[in-house]
Amino acid sequence: MLAKAVLSPIVVRALAEDLEGGDLTTEATVDPGAVAVAYAVARSEVVVCGGDVFRAVFAEVDPMLETTSGAAEGLRVPGGTVLWSVRGSARGILMGERTALNFVQRLTGIATLARAYVDAVPKGFPARITDTRKTTPGLRALERYAVRTGGAHNHRDTLGSAVLIKDNHIALSGGITDAVRRARERAPHTSRIEVEVESLAQLDEALAAAADIVMLDNFSPDDLDEAVRRAKGRALVEVSGGITLERIPVLARAGIDVISVGALTHSANAADIGLDIQSARGQLA
Amino acid sequence: MLAKAVLSPIVVRALAEDLEGGDLTTEATVDPGAVAVAYAVARSEVVVCGGDVFRAVFAEVDPMLETTSGAAEGLRVPGGTVLWSVRGSARGILMGERTALNFVQRLTGIATLARAYVDAVPKGFPARITDTRKTTPGLRALERYAVRTGGAHNHRDTLGSAVLIKDNHIALSGGITDAVRRARERAPHTSRIEVEVESLAQLDEALAAAADIVMLDNFSPDDLDEAVRRAKGRALVEVSGGITLERIPVLARAGIDVISVGALTHSANAADIGLDIQSARGQLA
Amino acid sequence: MLAKAVLSPIVVRALAEDLEGGDLTTEATVDPGAVAVAYAVARSEVVVCGGDVFRAVFAEVDPMLETTSGAAEGLRVPGGTVLWSVRGSARGILMGERTALNFVQRLTGIATLARAYVDAVPKGFPARITDTRKTTPGLRALERYAVRTGGAHNHRDTLGSAVLIKDNHIALSGGITDAVRRARERAPHTSRIEVEVESLAQLDEALAAAADIVMLDNFSPDDLDEAVRRAKGRALVEVSGGITLERIPVLARAGIDVISVGALTHSANAADIGLDIQSARGQLA
Amino acid sequence: MLAKAVLSPIVVRALAEDLEGGDLTTEATVDPGAVAVAYAVARSEVVVCGGDVFRAVFAEVDPMLETTSGAAEGLRVPGGTVLWSVRGSARGILMGERTALNFVQRLTGIATLARAYVDAVPKGFPARITDTRKTTPGLRALERYAVRTGGAHNHRDTLGSAVLIKDNHIALSGGITDAVRRARERAPHTSRIEVEVESLAQLDEALAAAADIVMLDNFSPDDLDEAVRRAKGRALVEVSGGITLERIPVLARAGIDVISVGALTHSANAADIGLDIQSARGQLA
Amino acid sequence: MLAKAVLSPIVVRALAEDLEGGDLTTEATVDPGAVAVAYAVARSEVVVCGGDVFRAVFAEVDPMLETTSGAAEGLRVPGGTVLWSVRGSARGILMGERTALNFVQRLTGIATLARAYVDAVPKGFPARITDTRKTTPGLRALERYAVRTGGAHNHRDTLGSAVLIKDNHIALSGGITDAVRRARERAPHTSRIEVEVESLAQLDEALAAAADIVMLDNFSPDDLDEAVRRAKGRALVEVSGGITLERIPVLARAGIDVISVGALTHSANAADIGLDIQSARGQLA
Amino acid sequence: MLAKAVLSPIVVRALAEDLEGGDLTTEATVDPGAVAVAYAVARSEVVVCGGDVFRAVFAEVDPMLETTSGAAEGLRVPGGTVLWSVRGSARGILMGERTALNFVQRLTGIATLARAYVDAVPKGFPARITDTRKTTPGLRALERYAVRTGGAHNHRDTLGSAVLIKDNHIALSGGITDAVRRARERAPHTSRIEVEVESLAQLDEALAAAADIVMLDNFSPDDLDEAVRRAKGRALVEVSGGITLERIPVLARAGIDVISVGALTHSANAADIGLDIQSARGQLA
Repeated sequence: MLAKAVLSPIVVRALAEDLEGGDLTTEATVDPGAVAVAYAVARSEVVVCGGDVFRAVFAEVDPMLETTSGAAEGLRVPGGTVLWSVRGSARGILMGERTALNFVQRLTGIATLARAYVDAVPKGFPARITDTRKTTPGLRALERYAVRTGGAHNHRDTLGSAVLIKDNHIALSGGITDAVRRARERAPHTSRIEVEVESLAQLDEALAAAADIVMLDNFSPDDLDEAVRRAKGRALVEVSGGITLERIPVLARAGIDVISVGALTHSANAADIGLDIQSARGQLA
Repeated sequence: MLAKAVLSPIVVRALAEDLEGGDLTTEATVDPGAVAVAYAVARSEVVVCGGDVFRAVFAEVDPMLETTSGAAEGLRVPGGTVLWSVRGSARGILMGERTALNFVQRLTGIATLARAYVDAVPKGFPARITDTRKTTPGLRALERYAVRTGGAHNHRDTLGSAVLIKDNHIALSGGITDAVRRARERAPHTSRIEVEVESLAQLDEALAAAADIVMLDNFSPDDLDEAVRRAKGRALVEVSGGITLERIPVLARAGIDVISVGALTHSANAADIGLDIQSARGQLA
Repeated sequence: MLAKAVLSPIVVRALAEDLEGGDLTTEATVDPGAVAVAYAVARSEVVVCGGDVFRAVFAEVDPMLETTSGAAEGLRVPGGTVLWSVRGSARGILMGERTALNFVQRLTGIATLARAYVDAVPKGFPARITDTRKTTPGLRALERYAVRTGGAHNHRDTLGSAVLIKDNHIALSGGITDAVRRARERAPHTSRIEVEVESLAQLDEALAAAADIVMLDNFSPDDLDEAVRRAKGRALVEVSGGITLERIPVLARAGIDVISVGALTHSANAADIGLDIQSARGQLA
Repeated sequence: MLAKAVLSPIVVRALAEDLEGGDLTTEATVDPGAVAVAYAVARSEVVVCGGDVFRAVFAEVDPMLETTSGAAEGLRVPGGTVLWSVRGSARGILMGERTALNFVQRLTGIATLARAYVDAVPKGFPARITDTRKTTPGLRALERYAVRTGGAHNHRDTLGSAVLIKDNHIALSGGITDAVRRARERAPHTSRIEVEVESLAQLDEALAAAADIVMLDNFSPDDLDEAVRRAKGRALVEVSGGITLERIPVLARAGIDVISVGALTHSANAADIGLDIQSARGQLA
Repeated sequence: MLAKAVLSPIVVRALAEDLEGGDLTTEATVDPGAVAVAYAVARSEVVVCGGDVFRAVFAEVDPMLETTSGAAEGLRVPGGTVLWSVRGSARGILMGERTALNFVQRLTGIATLARAYVDAVPKGFPARITDTRKTTPGLRALERYAVRTGGAHNHRDTLGSAVLIKDNHIALSGGITDAVRRARERAPHTSRIEVEVESLAQLDEALAAAADIVMLDNFSPDDLDEAVRRAKGRALVEVSGGITLERIPVLARAGIDVISVGALTHSANAADIGLDIQSARGQLA
Repeated sequence: MLAKAVLSPIVVRALAEDLEGGDLTTEATVDPGAVAVAYAVARSEVVVCGGDVFRAVFAEVDPMLETTSGAAEGLRVPGGTVLWSVRGSARGILMGERTALNFVQRLTGIATLARAYVDAVPKGFPARITDTRKTTPGLRALERYAVRTGGAHNHRDTLGSAVLIKDNHIALSGGITDAVRRARERAPHTSRIEVEVESLAQLDEALAAAADIVMLDNFSPDDLDEAVRRAKGRALVEVSGGITLERIPVLARAGIDVISVGALTHSANAADIGLDIQSARGQLA
């Protein structure tokens, strides 16, 4: 559930990009009293995501438009499924069409990709797939929601939510031990401390500093196995960087706890969803 | 050139997504007076795009940060090239790093993809590659700029910029002839009238109505050739929908004037750009 | 139809100008439970414009206020006509009164002036009256709508909608021929190319460059006739600058296609519309 | 002096109306490194107003543009005077030209009209000319500044600044005496109490209630003289409604203290100011 | 009554502070279809304030939530009183809980403190208690409303509402006499002129200049009595600075007209209001 | 360090509250070219906080104003210390004075109160003092910064940063064990799981469920000791609710890890800071 206070401003800005100058075509060709109904239809198999946004877009074009949902968020549905529909002023529907599709194609695309990654984890292994902060500027709240809807997990929300000591922090401070200590002293007690490590030596230093999570960067398969062995029971083990769908089973079987995948949000393809519009009976007042 | 008035609000919102709660890690581990320099480096061949945004991001974190450009917008550069750099407060650089990269990876990704499409047009054929309105909600101004930077063209900017009579408009009005007539009567004289057609019969009707541009939807190769022949000298011919890089040469050789590609903006992968940060001499006051 | 996403932010800002500190007079003198009905009445003949804005203003003061329309947008009505009404909390009506009137007086003023210009075109001549980009900062969407409502046409919406090569562009680039060529190469194929010319020689150059529209600047009556003759069938002819109502018939009879009138938006007088408020039965909960 | 915090958001919104989609013409025809200088020139006699806004517009297009002032705010200058100039990127100047002119033409138009009203008050009479709340939605701060710059005065700023009991308040409350009493009890002690009266009887009631200011609505000349006589020394006397430039001397000689003129802001014509742009030496980095 | 246009933006920003990243706890633990009802209960005696804000917060989380009021604004109620309630989605209620309480605890705290000051004025003395401009940045409209709700009065709303010549103005201009004269010439006729004075000599100067209000700064009890005597009938007398509840009776008995108390808004403690949430029957669609 | 993108919008809104209608007093009494210097002086001992905001306020009034810092953030300084100063346009300084003070009095008040709580923890005990989400709507980023500046710690930033299962969540879900399990499955791995417990039995259930943190609600002193004993080594122990300065030593000595104090932000008194303004040499251009 996305709070209206979070969702509406994003939707309003997106509509303004398209409609500040009106809709020349629709105003010229479609009668103001005309009524229509439109169905958002998946053109191929997808994991459904974006019903709240679909509704919000049309409500911010014209509050009299009525939307309904045809498929639950997070459900995997075959091509041809009606995901949502909208009924009312034909003009209003046409004016919101592109913006609504831009949102739901992106969100459903992310949810569908997230599900593929989740499904690639072999049964019985605990690895969770997470997003990263590599989200589209301005859409983080929505894209993280899509990741959750797809069955994957979110990584930390913002730079203020949890500590992740990366190579640059280590280079610019006094090393891992010192950085972990200072982070623990300063950060909220509700936040875990994660450290990115590039070698087994760094891993040992992070574990000795009692990091809660270690992120393995570019470890060879052998080193990765060794790292998992050393960290087991002492810290969660995350891998990140260069993750592809094909690598998931191997990483999961290696005992990795968390696999963070930037591609979930920065490189998901838009889902193929179309809006089929039909004239409907009735006439607006 | 992107006007500051257009660029800054987008950048401010993106930074707020990450920094409303401060940066726990950086504040804990990096000294407030520490100085650093950071280089945005292309990890593979790209078409450069986003220098203004890179600069704006760091300026909206801390106006004292200084950015420089290492490669001109629109240039194709090999992996390893330094695209831009920033120098100043180490804290400020770390706080803006992710947001800056999220922007430039997306924009450079779009420019690079656009260039690939443009380069796929065989020499001597006039076909232009354009974007569509399938842009990321909130980022249309930036993404259209990236398309231009890549050497491709923009389609109409908004629903108020030009007329494009699509299947839904035709269905909800009284047919092509009537729709074109009404559009010509109503739309600004600076806007061309484009009509989407699904058959040679519709094409003939659009040409008879003196549409300025016809968009061929799902035509067979034979029908497409015939359509180009009928339209030549009477209207520009555009194809859209289901365009892939592989189809470009054939479409161009068929004499198509405009090939519009939604994937340029809705499915471009993020370019691989990293930020290499080093400690620098000096100390902030 | 103005999308709520475009209209609401404008209305909210306008109300905030008046109501940030509350309404001292109304809060002191009018009972919170008092109910009233108010009628927006044209004090003289006008072309009606602004019903959506009237409704939006009161809805943004108090969503419980109910508005109705008494006259269709674009209709010419005699003085004394009730244009719109609003019923509900007397306090809410009084708080929104001035802002609502400020909007509808301006929009109706523009629509009424636009109609006067349109009506000044003699029957049988095709000249269209258009606005310019000389709109009130912050109100372009509304004012362009008012122009359309008055029966006139819009010129291009923004600097991104169409090309208009003016004297300054010509001076700062390499001349008309080059400027048209570059514009055609760069601008969206949906946008026409217009060139402002100051002499018959420039006109010839623009026509030779195949400009779609030529704008005649300060031509003598004789030159204007000659210009129309040369351009006929090759480009649309627009005149702009120093247009008054009195000159319209002559310009139209000269065969001009487009007469753009900055005064429509920058110098329209506010229409005389008053709000007659009466106490009504009932009591708010 | 207008605070940046008040001025910038207004300017940013206005620029966004024009530049969200870039500037097709300028980007196509003018070299990115080209340098220009532009002079805002009054085409006829005006009272100068808007230098801060002129500067702010170009700064929000491109902070590297440099503006200078050629004539002091509030000065009456002859046609041909250079009011302000701007130097730097030719592209930037062209992109901000229209928005800058839209602002300063409006503000200078208001200041010039205000000055005309002020000058119409015969020497030796104390009548002050004021604006009303009939300002352009979104531009109240600027338009009130223009009124002051023209030498006229502002009326109350907002509904929260002072009490003005109008006919509707009287009708919806228990009459003048009661309304004044309640207003005095509730309103800030820093605010005066003004009452609109439609007859000598109402005037007497308002004076008896010790209103600080009485506003005479539609009084005959004889009644107006009588009203001034009765109110003298007891309350300030204001007239409003249907004021024209021609009536000012008579009203002033009648001893009126305040003449409020809605037309100052709702019906001022745009001043005729042009921007003369020339190529300048140099080349941007 | 707070206009929606003023209230909603404040509420939306506050909710965004909490909910941009969703509500981890609620989404994980509470079923999306669960229904609840929640009661905002005063834990101790308070003066009720904030019903509109309570309603607005939940409406901006989820417009389907229904709120009701249990106690009128401005009423003093004992601990245990249900002030407002909300019913609907359990998730929505939990997501809005903290923001709603932050608002109403603050506003009710201010109203309650204001009432205490008002009640400290002995019967029969006319002194009014007012706030100052020492309000919380971003919340002035709400806090001034709370002051009124508590029975106290507002001072001027903004720097544009009335004139208050303080020590710094006097120091930076040519003295009291000159400053009052210039203010009277320039300020709206609806605004009173107030002068802050630090001695009986300054008081005399302000009275001679016909200031409407004098503000006594740091006067000894004897001087204060003398000041009241000198000002009586010539100007309202205000005291400000270092006011505590204990001093109110003495100040009121001294004949002071206005006692302005910064602490009303800058140092009011949050009222103790809790939200008791219960599971309710039903299930959301 | 507060990012400009986070700080500026807050400052702009606050200034707009005061300055939308200009500054009547300053414009009337102070010469536009007058130069002044102003010193923000602590009137009593404080912990300094708010230099960035002080600077931002004056920069958003007039970018030419120059600010300097006289005391480091977080330093405890005696009454009489100059904290910051500003030099430039006398008008600009007076226009920003109140807003700047409103911010820094609040932030310094919070920092000073936070320091008092921190100092109340007896030496050698590890208890940390934290804030809560009971922050002023719209000012969370600033107030949390003030808490850190005072030497205390932040609790979780937003509802999306960490899990805190409170009584209402327990009531609306299936109990502690189930809630913790579901939270661990869903929440980011970077977030800790905290559970509020009201009895030793609930404590045992939370510990058995492996909660990372337990928050003890209203435990008797004996139960509190017992709770600490049971939780030691298994979970962090937090107390919240009804905390006063006087209780800190006892709670710390009991071995509590975290004491969260809503009063830090919801009931801190404004610090006594004044702005001493003097005329300075020079004259603005």
